[in-house]
Amino acid sequence: MKINGEAFRTIWTASDRRAAEIIDQAQLPHRIEIARLDSLESAAIAIETMQVRGAPCIGAAAAYGMAIALQHDASDGGLDRAAARLRRTRPTAVNLQWGIEEIIATCRPLAERARAETALLRAEAIADEDVEICRAIGRNGLPIIRALAAKKPAGAPVNILTHCNAGWLATVDFGTATAPIYAAHDSGISLHVYVDETRPRNQGAALTAFELGAHGVPHTLIVDNAGGHLMQQGRIDLVIVGTDRTARNGDVANKIGTYLKALAARDNGVPFYVALPGPTIDWACVDGLRDIPIEERSSDEVLFVSGKSGDGALRRVRIAPDGTRAENPAFDVTPARLVTGLITERGVAEASETGLLALYPERA
Amino acid sequence: MKINGEAFRTIWTASDRRAAEIIDQAQLPHRIEIARLDSLESAAIAIETMQVRGAPCIGAAAAYGMAIALQHDASDGGLDRAAARLRRTRPTAVNLQWGIEEIIATCRPLAERARAETALLRAEAIADEDVEICRAIGRNGLPIIRALAAKKPAGAPVNILTHCNAGWLATVDFGTATAPIYAAHDSGISLHVYVDETRPRNQGAALTAFELGAHGVPHTLIVDNAGGHLMQQGRIDLVIVGTDRTARNGDVANKIGTYLKALAARDNGVPFYVALPGPTIDWACVDGLRDIPIEERSSDEVLFVSGKSGDGALRRVRIAPDGTRAENPAFDVTPARLVTGLITERGVAEASETGLLALYPERA
Repeated sequence: MKINGEAFRTIWTASDRRAAEIIDQAQLPHRIEIARLDSLESAAIAIETMQVRGAPCIGAAAAYGMAIALQHDASDGGLDRAAARLRRTRPTAVNLQWGIEEIIATCRPLAERARAETALLRAEAIADEDVEICRAIGRNGLPIIRALAAKKPAGAPVNILTHCNAGWLATVDFGTATAPIYAAHDSGISLHVYVDETRPRNQGAALTAFELGAHGVPHTLIVDNAGGHLMQQGRIDLVIVGTDRTARNGDVANKIGTYLKALAARDNGVPFYVALPGPTIDWACVDGLRDIPIEERSSDEVLFVSGKSGDGALRRVRIAPDGTRAENPAFDVTPARLVTGLITERGVAEASETGLLALYPERA
Repeated sequence: MKINGEAFRTIWTASDRRAAEIIDQAQLPHRIEIARLDSLESAAIAIETMQVRGAPCIGAAAAYGMAIALQHDASDGGLDRAAARLRRTRPTAVNLQWGIEEIIATCRPLAERARAETALLRAEAIADEDVEICRAIGRNGLPIIRALAAKKPAGAPVNILTHCNAGWLATVDFGTATAPIYAAHDSGISLHVYVDETRPRNQGAALTAFELGAHGVPHTLIVDNAGGHLMQQGRIDLVIVGTDRTARNGDVANKIGTYLKALAARDNGVPFYVALPGPTIDWACVDGLRDIPIEERSSDEVLFVSGKSGDGALRRVRIAPDGTRAENPAFDVTPARLVTGLITERGVAEASETGLLALYPERA
């Protein structure tokens, strides 16, 4: 998508083909900086410190990291060392493991001299595939927004609420939850996005607000507490969120607080859609609410807030008394009964095993 | 309640009877400081800058401010000037207006020489009355917690969720939502409070966590997004919140986000109680959801977060991109259908006109 009119992806091959380049997301929204990943270590650190983040984006970054590592050591040992280093960066990220395995599977059978360039081509293909999946999610979600727009008075925007950042910054381009939004905006539909700030890490305030603003989509930041009130007031036409994992029964795990918005949507008759790439469906998980483990993250994310200080420096401030204990569950599970539909690259499914299998019959 | 073992109220008469003293809540939770309000202007500034806050506490502070002003100018003109200055501090605070009017009604008929001491006695009585109302709310809510405790395994705490600060810091003592919690804790019932941080002003993180900690009540801070997940996991036995205004039909206006927790409580079979002093019932408001106006506050409260920086200084940081637009509705309305009961100084009422009139028959 665009930043100040210029088209970007989150990760791409440097013009000398000796590095990957990324938008350094740890600096967003306060600084727009490009980081060059020209070694295994710089790629690993970029993933660890969340200069790149978002499951699909991490998968591509891991593949690029492998490819760059092979430019320096294409031996079997080098392949294994690169994989081991990258696997340690975000141990629970499924896409990370997948990106690494893809490069190993592609390169291990090859002669050493062919490995680096083949790996780089495969990393680029992984990025391109992600872009195509997200583009298709946008295409499939667009009619939902178009239908809502048709019911509005002429010129009145479709008001959409989203939570966290399931935007293009979390993928290679387009995003998941944002893909239908960008598709609608780019096709000339008037819309307005309410962006949940998404405590504790504030990805909505820092990233979603940034990317919508940079692409020119009208939006308003609200605290996570405000969405229910806006729905009561009839000011939200549609909720679209992403998901980290979808269970076979249509339950969806997403950023903590998603469930509360789904309850409010149901209570107020607002359609609640979840956008997801097919690869994030966990077909082995039969019951999401029962079986999806919820990551408990550092209490510091609750106790401290980071941002730009009056002097321009990035700082963090403590918001609670010294010694306060905090819990920080990172995700919650929204039961399928609250989900109007699942927007995938293959189409829109009912949030149920039947609905999902209709789109993915090979999983039956 | 206690701070480090010493009993405090939020406001009291200085020992020389020439001033009111308060806990300076603008410094909490990072500094515990007593401020002396020995002039009309210092009292007005304390209310304006939220050194005292919370509707009942503001009412008492306004009465004290009038009394202190009369020590310096007890003429009719002085009475009017003091009232005019204090009315401007928080124009929408009903208790503030009430505290001012009480002193005017008490003092206007008196000779000038009798006014100052009479006003001080009336301010003290207003504070005492608030304490007794809150104490009674605690007494009436205690059996709800006791009954839940009786159903738990021996020693297992009753887990209570609260939102915002309806604690003793918002009143003169005991608080409203916290009054049953303190009553239960002080009577030896094992309990544990989950404290919503309550964006955007973080009164939960800054004030509720502080006062529970200072009194020794076990508690854990969570982001506003987390409560629904905890209820899904069966980890919350009871929700108690306060309210700024209760409608005749039992709808309650409270801090933004309360409605979302009420929805989650209903979805998970968790009892959801609202604690309130009778004077905050707006008998003229027939339908809260339709008729209670919602204050829209400064977008800066959303865009910036304040806290203690690494160097110990209190700072605010910007969490969103420069130029981001934010909306900041301060309250939402929880419909009576989601409220298990209203805990008042006269007893526990069903959240309905019938329920309220059974406790307040004089309003029929």
